[in-house]
Order: sequence, then C-alpha cells, then structure tokens
Amino acid sequence: MGSTWGNSIKLSIFGESHGAGIGVVLDGFPSGVPYDEAFILREMERRAPGRNKQSTARKEADLPKVQSGVYNGKTTGTPICAVIENTNQHSGDYTALAPQPRPGHADYTGAVRYQGCNDPRGGGHFSGRLTAPLVFAGALCKTWLKTQGVTVGSHIQSIAQIQDMPFDDVNVPVSQLETLRAADYPVNNPRALEAMLAAIEDARGEQDSVGGVIECAAVGLPAGLGSPMMDTVESRLSSILFAVPAVKGVEFGAGFAFAALRGSHANDTFYLDGDTVKTETNNNGGMLGGITSGMPLIVRACVKPTPSIAAAQNTLNVQTGRVEPLSIHGRHDPCIVTRAAPVVEAACAVALADLLREAKGYA
Amino acid sequence: MGSTWGNSIKLSIFGESHGAGIGVVLDGFPSGVPYDEAFILREMERRAPGRNKQSTARKEADLPKVQSGVYNGKTTGTPICAVIENTNQHSGDYTALAPQPRPGHADYTGAVRYQGCNDPRGGGHFSGRLTAPLVFAGALCKTWLKTQGVTVGSHIQSIAQIQDMPFDDVNVPVSQLETLRAADYPVNNPRALEAMLAAIEDARGEQDSVGGVIECAAVGLPAGLGSPMMDTVESRLSSILFAVPAVKGVEFGAGFAFAALRGSHANDTFYLDGDTVKTETNNNGGMLGGITSGMPLIVRACVKPTPSIAAAQNTLNVQTGRVEPLSIHGRHDPCIVTRAAPVVEAACAVALADLLREAKGYA
Amino acid sequence: MGSTWGNSIKLSIFGESHGAGIGVVLDGFPSGVPYDEAFILREMERRAPGRNKQSTARKEADLPKVQSGVYNGKTTGTPICAVIENTNQHSGDYTALAPQPRPGHADYTGAVRYQGCNDPRGGGHFSGRLTAPLVFAGALCKTWLKTQGVTVGSHIQSIAQIQDMPFDDVNVPVSQLETLRAADYPVNNPRALEAMLAAIEDARGEQDSVGGVIECAAVGLPAGLGSPMMDTVESRLSSILFAVPAVKGVEFGAGFAFAALRGSHANDTFYLDGDTVKTETNNNGGMLGGITSGMPLIVRACVKPTPSIAAAQNTLNVQTGRVEPLSIHGRHDPCIVTRAAPVVEAACAVALADLLREAKGYA
Amino acid sequence: MGSTWGNSIKLSIFGESHGAGIGVVLDGFPSGVPYDEAFILREMERRAPGRNKQSTARKEADLPKVQSGVYNGKTTGTPICAVIENTNQHSGDYTALAPQPRPGHADYTGAVRYQGCNDPRGGGHFSGRLTAPLVFAGALCKTWLKTQGVTVGSHIQSIAQIQDMPFDDVNVPVSQLETLRAADYPVNNPRALEAMLAAIEDARGEQDSVGGVIECAAVGLPAGLGSPMMDTVESRLSSILFAVPAVKGVEFGAGFAFAALRGSHANDTFYLDGDTVKTETNNNGGMLGGITSGMPLIVRACVKPTPSIAAAQNTLNVQTGRVEPLSIHGRHDPCIVTRAAPVVEAACAVALADLLREAKGYA
Repeated sequence: MGSTWGNSIKLSIFGESHGAGIGVVLDGFPSGVPYDEAFILREMERRAPGRNKQSTARKEADLPKVQSGVYNGKTTGTPICAVIENTNQHSGDYTALAPQPRPGHADYTGAVRYQGCNDPRGGGHFSGRLTAPLVFAGALCKTWLKTQGVTVGSHIQSIAQIQDMPFDDVNVPVSQLETLRAADYPVNNPRALEAMLAAIEDARGEQDSVGGVIECAAVGLPAGLGSPMMDTVESRLSSILFAVPAVKGVEFGAGFAFAALRGSHANDTFYLDGDTVKTETNNNGGMLGGITSGMPLIVRACVKPTPSIAAAQNTLNVQTGRVEPLSIHGRHDPCIVTRAAPVVEAACAVALADLLREAKGYA
Repeated sequence: MGSTWGNSIKLSIFGESHGAGIGVVLDGFPSGVPYDEAFILREMERRAPGRNKQSTARKEADLPKVQSGVYNGKTTGTPICAVIENTNQHSGDYTALAPQPRPGHADYTGAVRYQGCNDPRGGGHFSGRLTAPLVFAGALCKTWLKTQGVTVGSHIQSIAQIQDMPFDDVNVPVSQLETLRAADYPVNNPRALEAMLAAIEDARGEQDSVGGVIECAAVGLPAGLGSPMMDTVESRLSSILFAVPAVKGVEFGAGFAFAALRGSHANDTFYLDGDTVKTETNNNGGMLGGITSGMPLIVRACVKPTPSIAAAQNTLNVQTGRVEPLSIHGRHDPCIVTRAAPVVEAACAVALADLLREAKGYA
Repeated sequence: MGSTWGNSIKLSIFGESHGAGIGVVLDGFPSGVPYDEAFILREMERRAPGRNKQSTARKEADLPKVQSGVYNGKTTGTPICAVIENTNQHSGDYTALAPQPRPGHADYTGAVRYQGCNDPRGGGHFSGRLTAPLVFAGALCKTWLKTQGVTVGSHIQSIAQIQDMPFDDVNVPVSQLETLRAADYPVNNPRALEAMLAAIEDARGEQDSVGGVIECAAVGLPAGLGSPMMDTVESRLSSILFAVPAVKGVEFGAGFAFAALRGSHANDTFYLDGDTVKTETNNNGGMLGGITSGMPLIVRACVKPTPSIAAAQNTLNVQTGRVEPLSIHGRHDPCIVTRAAPVVEAACAVALADLLREAKGYA
Repeated sequence: MGSTWGNSIKLSIFGESHGAGIGVVLDGFPSGVPYDEAFILREMERRAPGRNKQSTARKEADLPKVQSGVYNGKTTGTPICAVIENTNQHSGDYTALAPQPRPGHADYTGAVRYQGCNDPRGGGHFSGRLTAPLVFAGALCKTWLKTQGVTVGSHIQSIAQIQDMPFDDVNVPVSQLETLRAADYPVNNPRALEAMLAAIEDARGEQDSVGGVIECAAVGLPAGLGSPMMDTVESRLSSILFAVPAVKGVEFGAGFAFAALRGSHANDTFYLDGDTVKTETNNNGGMLGGITSGMPLIVRACVKPTPSIAAAQNTLNVQTGRVEPLSIHGRHDPCIVTRAAPVVEAACAVALADLLREAKGYA
C-alpha cells in the first residue's frame, strides 16, 4: 500500500518535499555489486533541477547519504537505505496556495485521501522531488544490470509536437544509449533538439508549460523473463512507470499505433541469427505473451505538461466556494520532460532488475 | 509470480486452452454480495466467441461451475472458485504449428520461459480463452461495485482507423454505460459501427486482421481512492490491463495527447457543484497524484490486431533453421477488439473493487 | 488476505466442507516436474479419514481432479489447479448446531468475520477438510524437493502425554523419513505407539478427545536459504503451520526448552566434516539468524485436542442467550494428531519449496 | 524478500550494527495519529542496553530522527521514516572473530547467504540492535491502537526455570499492562523477579547466559479480525515474532500444553456477558479459526540464551579447518530476555495494527 514496490527487489520510498529528508530502502538487492558513487551521482545530476536554463532554478544538493547495505565499496545483500536531506526548502513559496487546490496537482486528492493531514508544502509526498530516490535506486539497479549484460537508456521522443528520431527497435547499440546518457539533453537528432528548446522557451515566454514523450530501451535482456497473464513484463513496467508523477500513458513497441495496423504488418517474423532467435521487425517491443523475446525492449511514457505554470489560472477557493484566479509563484520548469528521461529510465531499470533477480534467484 | 493479482481481493487464474478446465479463485471478496448468475452469464456471453459473424466460429459453452464461496445465493466472504470445463477443443488444429513459432504469439517466449514444458495446444495458458475467468471475476466485482454506487462500462473507441465518439469525460451517464453493455457491439455512433464492421469484413476478405482501442469509464467512485508514488490508481489499473493478451498501450484521460498540450490547457479547473468538488475539464481522467478525484475515471487500452491470420506468413522453422511460410488453420477472429471490450471492463472492475475494498476494510 | 500464501510459489486454497468442491491453485511451480499421481494419492490417503479405527468414519474419496498445469505427465510451469469434489456431505448432521456456536470451533468468529454469510455446514471454509488440498500441494512440492535432494518427513512426537523417541537432530536418515511415511502411524517407538493408541481409545470411551505434537524434519537443504529480520525461515514456516487448523504452538530445534538452557549448552559448536560445515549439536534446528545452516531442519507443531467431542458440552444458545448443553453428533475423530502429521509435513514442504524456488530462480 | 513485512501497514527495516545508521520505513500508517515522542522514547528506552546492571554496558543513544511522515505533530498518512545513527561502534571488538564463526550466531549462515559480502561487524544486519527500529514502529502502532481501544503489554513469564505469575487469560486489566510497561523489569510477582535477577547474576558469574519466555497480551481487540486458512492471526503474529532474533518458539493460549489436555477441558465455553459473547476459559488465547474472538489475545515467545558468552567456546576456525577455542570479548548481556519484552510487544503491536488497519480500511 502506497510507496512500496517490487517482488524480489523491494523498494520503499519515503519523504516529503519540505520535510527533513527523502530517500529509499532497497530490500533484496544482490550482494557484491560495486557501489559506484560517481555513476550514481551523475545519474542523479541528470535529474537534478537547475542544471540548465530549461529547468527550475532551485539548487538541490541531492547527495544521497548511504545508511546501510554498502560495505567495503560493495553491496552487502541486506537492505540499502539512502537519505537525501532537504536543505533548501522555501516553504513560504507554497503556503499561499493552501485555500486553492492547484489545478493538475494532488492538493485536493491528497487532502481527501489523508483527511487533511498530509504535508502540503511543495506537494509533500506527491512532489516530483520524490523521484530523486527513485533515480538513486535506478542507478544501483543499472550497475547490477550492467554486470548481467543489460543496458537501459532513453531519449526524448517528443516535446510539444516536435519528434526526435525514434530508436531502431531491432538494433539499439549500447553506444547510442551511453551517448544519450552523457548528453545534456538525450535527443538523437540535434535539429529536433534545437526545435524542442525553442518550444520550451516559447512556453516560458508565455508563462506556460509543455509536455512530451520519453522513449526508453533495454538491450541485452535474455529471452524468457516474465510471466503470462497477471504478471507480464508490461504489467510490471507500467505499474512503476505510472508511479512517476505526470506520466499518463505507457505503450510498448508499436503501442497505440497497433490500432491502425493489419495483423500481417503487425506480426514480427522470427528468424535465426547465428544461434539466436530474433524477429525481423519488433512491433511487440521485445515482449510476446508478457515474456521477453530477447529483442530490444521498447517502451514509451507520456509526460503531461508541468501543472505549475506562472500564468494565473482559475481554480476553486475552498474558503469562499468560488472559482478565483491563482498565481503560482516559486520555481517551476516550463518543461519537466528533459528531467523525466532519467526518471523513466530508473523506473525501467528497477523493474527489470526485479524481474532478472527473480529469474536468477540468489545467484 | 504469474497468474495471481491483487491486494485486498486476490485473483488467481488458471487453465490452458485445451486442458481439462480453466477458472479463477477470488480471495478476499466481500461477503453477502448477491450471486447474480444471469448477469454473470450475460457478461461472459459478451466475451464469448461465435456470437456474431465477426468472431471465431468456435462454440464455447463457458459455463462457470462455482465450487465454493457462494451459499444461499450470496457470497460467503471465503474464496470463490469457478471452473469452466474445456469441452470443445480441436487440438488437431494446432499440433501442426509446433516447429514454427507463430508470429505475434507467445509460442517462442513461452517455450523459453518454461523450458519447453508448457502446454502448446491452442496457446495453452497464453490463450485468449483465459480471459473468460477474468470476465467472470469482473462480473462479480461489478455486482459489488454496483452496491457501492460504482458503474464500469466501455465502448470501442476505434477499429482500424475508424473512431467512435469518445465518452464525455466530465459526464458519463450510467444509462449510456448500460446501453453499451446491452448492445451487440458497444459503439456510441451507429455510423462508426457500420464502418468498423466493414473494415473487419475487408480484413477477413484479405485473410488479415485489424486492431483497435477500447475506452473504459468508471463513474460513482469516491474521491480519495489510491496512493501516491508506487501504488497509484494508474499503476494498478495498467498492471491488470497489460494482463489482457494483445493490449500494448494504456493511457488515462488525455493520455498521449498530453504531449502536445500546453499546461494552461491541460490543467483541470476545480469548482464546486453543490457540495461536490469537480473539475470543469477532465484531462487527468479522474485521477490526480495517483488518487481518484471523484470525476469519471477514463482509461483507454490499445488492442493489437489478432496475430493469428488466415493468410500465409513467414516464420522460422526451428527444425530446419530457415524462415518458411506458415498457414494457420482453425478458428480465428479477424478482429478481437469487439470481444476485448468486456475483458477490459472486467480488468478495470477487478482493480477498482480491489482498491475500494482496501479503502472500506471488512465493511 | 485469507487463503493465499507464498512468494515464488503461490498457493490459493478454496472450498467449503459441504460445497461443490474444494481445491488449490499453485502458481509459480517449476516446470518439468513429473506428476507422480501414485505418490500424491498415497500422501492424500495418509490424511484421509476412515483409514483406521482412530479416525472418523466419513469416507471421503478425495480424488484430486487436475484442471491445469500438467501436460504429458509433467508440470507445465503455469498454474496447477486441482479440484476435489465433495460427494459425501451429511449436512443434516450439522444444521442442529446453528444456534449454539461449538466450543473450540470457528462458528462464532467466522460468523462475526463474514457478517453471518459464511457457509456454516461442517465448518465451511474452516473445516479440517480444507487440509486435503494442502496435502495435495505438499505432495507436489515434495516431488520437486526430492529432485533437489531435499526430503521432508515427520512423526508423532506425542499424543496425550505419551512421548515418542524424537529425531536425532544432527542425523535424520532419509530412510527413517521414508519408513515413517509408509507406516500406518508415523511413530518411531512401537511401544509408544501402543500407548498412544490406548490413550486414544480411552478418550473415545469417555466421549472425549486428545491432542499431541508433530515433529517434522527436512534434510538435504543447502545452507544459506532464507533471510534475516522479517522473512526468516522460521517466519515462513510458522506462518503456514499456523494455517493448519488446531495448531496452537510452533517451535524450532530446542524450542521452548531453550528457556531453561544456559548459553554454553545451547550454542551449537561448528566443525568441518569433509568439506561441509556442520554443528556438533543442533539446538537451533537447522537455522541461524533465520537462514538455513545445512543441518537438519527440525520443527514441532502442537495440535490441540479435537474440539468436536461426543460428550455433551455447555455453550451459549444465541437464541435464548443462555448457556445450554450441546451434543455434537456426526463423525468425529477422538484424535486428529495421527492425520495431522501429513498435513504438517505438507505445510513444511510448501514453505521450503517456496524458499528454494526463490533461491534458485527460474532454473 | 528479507526485511519488509506487512499488508496494510508495511514495515521496511534497514541497517547494520556498525554502519552509518539503522531505521525503519512504515508505509500505510494511518494519518492524523499524534506523534507522541515522549512515549516513543520511553518505549525505546525499555529496550536500550546499559539501562541496568543486567544488560550490556554499551550506551546507545538510539534517538530516532524522523525524516518524513510527521507534520504538525501528527502522522501524515504517507511513509514515516526514522533513522537512528550509529554513534558508538567499537568495531575493533569484533574483527578478531572473523575466522571463527560464533556458535549460535548468524556469522556462518549470513556469509553463505550473501556470498561473504555482508557486513560482519557486530553481526551486521543480524544484530539485535536492529530491534530498535522495530520498537520505534511498535510504539507508533501502540499509539494508534490506543485510539482504537486496544492495549498491548507483556511480562517476563520465565527466566532460566523461574516462573512469573501468568496473565489471567480471561481478564487482563489495562492497568496491569501499564504497570508492567512502567516497571524496570516487567514481572508480576516480585519474588519471582528477585529469583530471576539472582539467576542472571549466577550466569554472569559463570561467564554464561540464560534464556526465558515472554508472555504478551492484547486487550480491546474486536471479535472478527483475521482470516481462516493461510492468513490466520496466529500466522501473522508468529511470522513477525520469529523475526525477533533469538525467538525459537511461539505459542498461543494454552499452546504446547494443549498436547496434554482432553477436548472437554480444552474447549472454551461460550456465554453472554451483557451484550458481549465471551468464553469462560480462554485456552484458545483469543483466537478461534484464525480469527479474534474478542477475548484477550495471549501469546508467548521463547527467547534463547544470549549466544555471546564470556566463557571460551569451541568452534571451527575456517582458516585452519580445526575446532579451536574462541573467547568473545566486548559487551554482552548474560540475559536478553529483559530487553526482549518490549521487542516482543512491539512485534505484536505492529501485527495487530496491520490487521486492524486492514479491517477498518482508510478510515
């Protein structure tokens, strides 16, 4: 119930935007995995705000302090806990919002759910800041997946209506994923990036925000991971992807485009490449019957435009009962899609590590 | 692991297409709920094949035999088990396929997952037939949800590229959902239906198949169901929707269309309607921060075109190692979207009953 | 919630004593395990009533009808469901009890829990008959465990106050476990058995009943199974052992006798036997820190005397509000301990298979 | 897997004895519960070592630093995380042990389980110190249970072979539980306490240790909590009680004494006390069929003697392959039973809060 996820690797995420600290416990993580702090900090840096002009000016240190589960530079196999202190809260920015639930935010639903007791400052436990511990967990999972030959990466498929070049779904080179990871903005086509940045600046200029789509790929997965019916790979991935705030759609392979395809074009022809069974196309996105096929896993998540916009919006004032204008001050990204890429990747990495751990057992 | 799902109401689905029987156990279902057999059979009839020209000619009796959990016409509160005997298997239709994994099916991935031991006849546990017990479970959950003021319904949003009129997401009348439930084909716009049927016949004529999208709505849900972060309403719904074979995309509210919206248009303005907090638009599909808002819940699932097509397709012959043509004989729908609607509804009903049961406790 | 148990192998038990059928679904069971029907039936026969003079005269066929999960004589890896039809119900025997909750039974607590809707006939879902599907599941698990070198067996440690010779906890030969399995009554010391049978007949003569203790051992387990803290081997075993009706105490190794031991005597000294680390004594019953040590696993479960006795007892009449005598007619064992041995074994086998499957992954 | 527990309230415990910190995340805890820091600290103080002559001289601050889930003095409903820093480690005391696994400890099994990667200092994650966050969680749960009319308390039933006066199982006054909670040693009979303390001093004098039994009671529980078969109240309580290091036996009500009782004496007669159904005796310890009866819940847990003793013991030296004497230096209790009482209480409180939360839902 709530903020715990996973089967063989269990994740428990805690914290509120303006509380003492946020963090995560990973239970069931394999022992003996190197704790690569430099890699983890780079991954967290990718998500961090204030990194470039497009994202919020709030400077978060976001340094995870490991409490347990790491010894002599390696994971112990017992629970890993990391705490990130909240050092830079500006609660004042948010208190004015109290009587007016912000449109597109969880202010209203959170208050109903928790009988008004939840911490409303900065969105509390609903804050996007809670994705920082998810990225921490994802970075650890990526480190382990790497030792198993699996790489997870992503690019921004679209912002506003500008499309990047999608992954070649039958052949996603690891080098491409690593180049994207190292980039300021993970976009394949530089001209698309230019247009995306312009669209973001347009939105900022109009005190507005834009959404987009992240495409994530995982390569090196063995065939045969997952289960039919109620516990498909798609089920697990989607359940953690919809845990990422602002994600409102998830699709695999051809996804919603399947609706307009004929079976004869949708089906992926099997063939033999050396000893390996492959498919000539990969409309199914690396899964058939809920189980991995060994082809690249392809998933896309839609990220809605940042609900916090600078322009005044109408919303209910619960004290007066009337709809009144609301201006949200403070630090807000006109586009969180750029920062969402490492979060979507992290969510996928956690889900795939959980699956692979289950398949491999203690080993 | 596998075919078990749920928190407060647990579902365990079993069976293979050509085994002795298929069925489901529901554990944690409320006591005292009327067992409305006529309603359950009507729901199962909606999914059953051979009901109309568009669906496969296989006649399945699909009569669920209740083993437990119902006494004096009401649920007992202890596990409900229903078994549906498989009486009409034509295993001969499938044995020829063995050396050639069918494109778009789980033949290959299932064999890897289970080291070649899974029952391959008719797809075994991967068969679409396994959705019959899910519909049974969904019908039970709908009966209970109805007593709680909640109605779940759906329509075919699209087949091929023909679009039906979508739900009015701020106002889905219960009567509309009931009309759709009673219809041969749950489509709002009769002209769209006509075009859809023509598209299906076209595909059949060309020995091909078509896909589509189901839109599902739930009305009467209280605000405040669900949890932030890892256990959002979206997470639970998507995890069971991706358990429906052939579903490859799931979106809520505006879904992937959010990617092209500005925040100022995407945000839903709160207002007061009598004593009830509502939103003027419902782009978020009835959920904010992973928690229900009390607005209609709107979800769409994309269903890929039936992989089994009459036309010959190329695929690997694992005995020769070569790609060779494969003709799939037997009974196959050129379009399973029509039959998928009650399945998608059932999946949603199960997930929402699970959530509501958790919120209400034993009561 | 309720009748579902397990992590990597999930069990879902359903049924009521006088309903249509009882049974079990096993989800996550390994593929390719021989379905040894003869062995399974022998195991179920050990639990079945009417087998000897000491147990109830009710003849239950108890033939499990496999619905799914077995193909070509082996498990498929997908869910296994078995249904046992209830063919021999004498509901008349029980209806008279309705206004008077039977002492020591779940009549009262079940009615409160399920708002009076549960099936009261023969105890409904609370009936000891529900252990038949558990024994079925246990027999399957034993078959798999055997292929992994693990044997589970048990004996009656005591009935009334008569003690059998306990297992030699540092060396439990597989042959001893198999001899016990084949015996009419699994007792090591024939003279103890004689006295136990006499004690049962004494109780029967006085229209009363007696309880006892089952001692169960598992040999061949690798060291290193289980987890510290919240998911110890003891936690898992006890949680399923307390699912066996009438079990009210569970202890491992020296168990409650530890309370009177000094540390210097309680500690088990490590030594090397060839390449294997062993302990000279085994007071810890094969587990240290919640993890198996490779020594025989020793667990004991206390079984309370059959609550249904022939002699009249006082109990509340809910209609009159007064305490009145109640005579329970029908078929009742003066001692269920003899039949409890295979049930306790089955529970242990399920828990250990679940643990071992988790450790080994899909392999 | 591992250190996560619970259904409606999930607990995730982390930390190693000599790492940076230990702690716990509680997910699903009700909102609006007062955070009674003084009460929590008193509870933790009861468990803390160095409190009296009988327990280890190690001074642990054990101040839990709340990271999240508490706002304006009340719980928020979102995850509560508390971290306790490890400030007083003497790792030097333990390093000498490395080549010789300590008898009765998890040194050997932990190393096998985690391939030698687990933190061995002070027992790492296996350390009794990890019960501090459990007591923190238990104190929170007790606070909530109190608002629901439920009180949990305990006394030392025995140390060595000296018995305290057991609870009157049909009538445990709340005042008795509170008196015990406030006492230096929770013992009903002062003369028994005197003898217990003498027995502890005897053991200390002989560089040895003693074990004992804790009896725990919960009063005010409504009838009808829990489930039959696989999720009985006994199953849940035992699964968390066996998570307490050193607990090797758990029994309810008459427990193992049932083995020597006749049914006619074991059965508890129902009667009506005003409007409330009660039983004249309470041999079943407040549960029938796995469900609470409304009578006091009575459970006993056996605690083995501290494995770390000052006297030299023989054990394997893995470097030489020979059995050699081992002297364990450092701080060790000759009796941990006194400190185990609040831990056993805490475990029960967590399990009962989990059950009650499930029964009451969000409310």
